[in-house]
Amino acid sequence: MALLYKADLARAPHWQTLFAEHAPDIEWRAWPDIGNPEEVEYLAAWQAPDDLTQLLPNLKVLFALSAGVDQLDLSRLPADLPVVRLLDPGITRGMCEYATWAVLSLHRDMLRYREQQAARCWQAHLLQPAEHRRVGVMGLGTQAQQILATLAPFGFALSGWARSVHEIEGVDCFAGQAQLSAFLGQCDILLCVLPLTEQTEGILDRNLFALLPRGAGLINMGRGGHLVEGDLLEALESGQLGGAILDVLQVEPAAADHPFWGHPQVVLTPHVAAMTQPASAFGVLLENIRRFERGERMVGQIDRNRGY
Amino acid sequence: MALLYKADLARAPHWQTLFAEHAPDIEWRAWPDIGNPEEVEYLAAWQAPDDLTQLLPNLKVLFALSAGVDQLDLSRLPADLPVVRLLDPGITRGMCEYATWAVLSLHRDMLRYREQQAARCWQAHLLQPAEHRRVGVMGLGTQAQQILATLAPFGFALSGWARSVHEIEGVDCFAGQAQLSAFLGQCDILLCVLPLTEQTEGILDRNLFALLPRGAGLINMGRGGHLVEGDLLEALESGQLGGAILDVLQVEPAAADHPFWGHPQVVLTPHVAAMTQPASAFGVLLENIRRFERGERMVGQIDRNRGY
Repeated sequence: MALLYKADLARAPHWQTLFAEHAPDIEWRAWPDIGNPEEVEYLAAWQAPDDLTQLLPNLKVLFALSAGVDQLDLSRLPADLPVVRLLDPGITRGMCEYATWAVLSLHRDMLRYREQQAARCWQAHLLQPAEHRRVGVMGLGTQAQQILATLAPFGFALSGWARSVHEIEGVDCFAGQAQLSAFLGQCDILLCVLPLTEQTEGILDRNLFALLPRGAGLINMGRGGHLVEGDLLEALESGQLGGAILDVLQVEPAAADHPFWGHPQVVLTPHVAAMTQPASAFGVLLENIRRFERGERMVGQIDRNRGY
Repeated sequence: MALLYKADLARAPHWQTLFAEHAPDIEWRAWPDIGNPEEVEYLAAWQAPDDLTQLLPNLKVLFALSAGVDQLDLSRLPADLPVVRLLDPGITRGMCEYATWAVLSLHRDMLRYREQQAARCWQAHLLQPAEHRRVGVMGLGTQAQQILATLAPFGFALSGWARSVHEIEGVDCFAGQAQLSAFLGQCDILLCVLPLTEQTEGILDRNLFALLPRGAGLINMGRGGHLVEGDLLEALESGQLGGAILDVLQVEPAAADHPFWGHPQVVLTPHVAAMTQPASAFGVLLENIRRFERGERMVGQIDRNRGY
């Protein structure tokens, strides 16, 4: 019985060592050295090969090595193949760090001070107390809830929006299309960690921006596909949005002539909010393998109808 | 009986309203309209007038409207005049926000990503888990302890150094000159919130930088006088320091030709880490006035020998 690893080769040796030490019963193989394909029961991958069923006839579970699975074309995978996303606590911690940094950057006017430094201008701006700053999170899954818990001690006025109804202490929760505009109307800082689905693609567009308070800040740590990039440029130009911090883009890496690079009101980072770390991810993956072996439900298993 | 306010005029009306509402027994006056000087018993000021004793013969307490009092020449004030610094919870919250933002900026390589954005370069760098990042705070007073408490949930390896011995849960505490080099040797990120005294002036110099791990990051939110600016430039040039985030300078505002403005490894903000906010500061000031009236010790009263 073997697990086939098909992802970043730089981190492969670390994964290999962890399997050798803690799960010697599972033979670890790295793509493209598949060995006898009939022995491969688990695939741990960022992206799946096209001819999955033919290639690995005895595949039992596909473990995505990421928190989202939008990079996989689920419709092309066997309908009864369990697909499990990786709820790596290292990823969640990375997301919380980045979110806190980004919210504080907007809260404390750091885009303006970056511009002032470039212009050699020493000028202080009045400081807004955190309790007057309304921070809204789109998406209320595991990561979003951890992000909200990390922001709470700073005293921000917190809210959240998701498709389904949630109750989170200290967070004003909104649900569904019906409450979206009420949610947006009270977001001084909007942070997107939605999963990317047909319903959420392009959700960050001019119609949504128009519902935010004038001058609001935007943080996108979801996927590039959430944001209509031209609409953001327009909203920054008109002053409807005051600034944006983006970790993801429609096309990555960004081309050298992408207008966000040189935009004074955009902070752009190269998809680094969080990275899967073998050290923290291995335990989660192994625990799911053991659960599968025991016939238990795995943590992070995708609902193939919802797509997340 | 009157209180004389001698500070930022923009915030004066707010102070005046608060006194009128909550302490009508204290007549509030704003510099330079002193009125009958014999009636002035309290001075709430950023800087004291030169001829204090002559000007206000019945002055009983000097309330500094700042957390530090280094802007006051204590030696020129009457020896028996109580001087009280302002421990405004709003200031402390501002310091915690800025410190968290600055530590996360260094921890998450944001100075490098700022440079990469300017160079239109999309390149990710490996992420260090917070528990491997050693953050050391110089100064262990009220503000420093709040900063450490704010950083703790992120999982950083925390340490602190002060002149006297401290015990803080979850923080490796070092004390005095004897333990300074041991403290510095384990600081990946060094954050200075020391008071500015004769002993701490110029403490952030080439000798201190040489004791840090190579490539360490520096945050100065203390006073500009702590830092020998030329030594920092040299340490950044040699690679001994990897980056610096500075909110204070020797001379403020910085001249247009100051080398920090255009330095890719320096983030410079115009002394905005925290600002006294009447809304949060008023209660603290009034409570101290009432304590004085009852003959109790005030919170934040300066030890005239130590200077803080």
